[in-house]
Amino acid sequence: MTPTQQLACDLIRLRSVTPEDAGCMPLMIERLEKIGFETTMLRRGDTDNFWAVRNGKNEGPLFAFAGHTDVVPTGPEENWQHPPFEPVIEDGYLYGRGAADMKGSLAAMVVACEEFVAAHPEHSGRIAFLITSDEEGPAHNGTVKVVEWLEEQGEKIDCCLVGEPSSTERVGDVIKNGRRGSLGLELTVFGVQGHVAYPHLAENPIHTLAPALAELAAEEWDKGNDFFPATSFQVSNINGGTGATNVIPGDVKVVCNWRFSTETTAAQLEQRARKILDKHGLKYEADFKLSGQPFLTAAGPLVEAAQAAIESVTGLATELSTAGGTSDGRFIAPTGAQVVELGPVNATIHKVDECVKAADLDSLKDMYREILKRLL
Amino acid sequence: MTPTQQLACDLIRLRSVTPEDAGCMPLMIERLEKIGFETTMLRRGDTDNFWAVRNGKNEGPLFAFAGHTDVVPTGPEENWQHPPFEPVIEDGYLYGRGAADMKGSLAAMVVACEEFVAAHPEHSGRIAFLITSDEEGPAHNGTVKVVEWLEEQGEKIDCCLVGEPSSTERVGDVIKNGRRGSLGLELTVFGVQGHVAYPHLAENPIHTLAPALAELAAEEWDKGNDFFPATSFQVSNINGGTGATNVIPGDVKVVCNWRFSTETTAAQLEQRARKILDKHGLKYEADFKLSGQPFLTAAGPLVEAAQAAIESVTGLATELSTAGGTSDGRFIAPTGAQVVELGPVNATIHKVDECVKAADLDSLKDMYREILKRLL
Repeated sequence: MTPTQQLACDLIRLRSVTPEDAGCMPLMIERLEKIGFETTMLRRGDTDNFWAVRNGKNEGPLFAFAGHTDVVPTGPEENWQHPPFEPVIEDGYLYGRGAADMKGSLAAMVVACEEFVAAHPEHSGRIAFLITSDEEGPAHNGTVKVVEWLEEQGEKIDCCLVGEPSSTERVGDVIKNGRRGSLGLELTVFGVQGHVAYPHLAENPIHTLAPALAELAAEEWDKGNDFFPATSFQVSNINGGTGATNVIPGDVKVVCNWRFSTETTAAQLEQRARKILDKHGLKYEADFKLSGQPFLTAAGPLVEAAQAAIESVTGLATELSTAGGTSDGRFIAPTGAQVVELGPVNATIHKVDECVKAADLDSLKDMYREILKRLL
Repeated sequence: MTPTQQLACDLIRLRSVTPEDAGCMPLMIERLEKIGFETTMLRRGDTDNFWAVRNGKNEGPLFAFAGHTDVVPTGPEENWQHPPFEPVIEDGYLYGRGAADMKGSLAAMVVACEEFVAAHPEHSGRIAFLITSDEEGPAHNGTVKVVEWLEEQGEKIDCCLVGEPSSTERVGDVIKNGRRGSLGLELTVFGVQGHVAYPHLAENPIHTLAPALAELAAEEWDKGNDFFPATSFQVSNINGGTGATNVIPGDVKVVCNWRFSTETTAAQLEQRARKILDKHGLKYEADFKLSGQPFLTAAGPLVEAAQAAIESVTGLATELSTAGGTSDGRFIAPTGAQVVELGPVNATIHKVDECVKAADLDSLKDMYREILKRLL
């Protein structure tokens, strides 16, 4: 086993189901302190976080690796062919919960730093780690709290590489240079409860909602742009009715979500949604909740360094993408940092028998090291 | 207290919450047998039923009073100003669970027969009672079973008066000479589950349903006719979603109901509903369930006798109506019987502090007696 694979296995063996760290951070910190990092533990609520930094000899950017030690639950362990916390390499694949999301990346980051520092002990700028144990959970006490602390310290990250599994077919084929925004809506439409046999004495909120919902679902919110797919709207939950088959319910509740591009703002989406609801004469309460602004690192040293590093290691011309779910990048990008996400193939994340090509972890480690070399 | 009020109080005192009879039938039967009725008890499952008949001297129609001794539950008794099973007359109103639905009617039927038989011991035709203790519940072991038994006996009811509370403002102002049909639909629309951030990999069944539901809700199924209001469609329940706000659900379930006139059939409604669902390209399972055919007693001796009796007692020109919920008339009408429903004012039925004007029970008794006089 290579050092990166070995460290990945050591991390996977620790049962760090969100928000538990289960000893992952001490393992990383021990390695980082050996090569000159200084660590600050930042426990917040039920969540462990740490910030570690290694100062270079000259002026230069503050480059941070960001990631998480927590993993999503396994579900019934008997459904796994390979026990989730007993890492094993079989037919070239490393199996275990977190292999792809994202203990493999954490191992690659640590070993990349070890190699880089050994070769360039007098690098310029600074290298940092921003690690949390609450990315897979509510994310209230994780990265967002470390970012607040950094601001209090007057620290500003220039470039941030998040180790989320960005790749689709081959490691490095896709990096995320931004994410769409996420706007939630909890909608309650009110009617008048009554008996189905006397509809003139009632007002069915499901009936008044239906055409408005059809219009919301059919709406083109924008066309996206060069960096973002078009804004999408999805209803995740709808519930109305007393359970009885002869009662017209008094209200119906709908939960929806927009993933939105930089062509639209959350305020515009809310305004347009309210206009549709109002047009259909609905009596409603609408609770809009912004859970992430869109962000974009369109071009610049970090994206260029990542593209060049990937090409030098794999020969691949990587694709820039802003698709997919949210990540902790949403908390870091608003500070003005350039942010990209680069990590292993994401085909098996959150699934049983999560795995990653063992050799990919070494390629990833090489990419990370090459990025450091280009920037510092 | 008048004899009708007294008997109503005696019945209300018995806690016959559906499907319990709690001694109501023995009380009625004792009175009926004294005036020459012969009784058959027809216990079915958890339900008491009886059929009682008094033969007249000559040929003539078989006239049946139909009704139920069971009442709906009271809810928390402390919410009642007047304890539900302690009948009391206050300010001219008789209070108690079942006062209006329908122990007042049962008392009026029994006393009407006593008066009628005393005055006309040699009446023509036959007078019968078809009484159940499961009208307010599932109604599986009640009137429907007695009707089956009557068919086995070769008995055929010619005229049936159901004592359901048909009146709206004054006793006798409305009689029901039919009821709409009731057709249920349990609909499941299928999509493909997925993450809201990757809608192109999923198919949201709530989105595909919405325009179809809007069309179903807006559809004019028919315009009704002289006897029936227009067929109405109502969604009673809609449920879709995993509870998570970031998951597009794999299916959504809808429960709907048509109350339909004689201008449409259940088969036509199903065909038209499927056409709308198909037009919108839905993948669905639809389970249609007919719970009652519409029935109508448009004209004839029974309606005329009821109208004349009401006018002679109250001076009111009664209104014929087919509106409202289902009743046990739906089981009796298909045998070819004329069926009308005539009972007290229904404003407080199924509510706390159910009550009826005490004097109305005597008016009702007089109407019932006058109907017997006109038909037998």
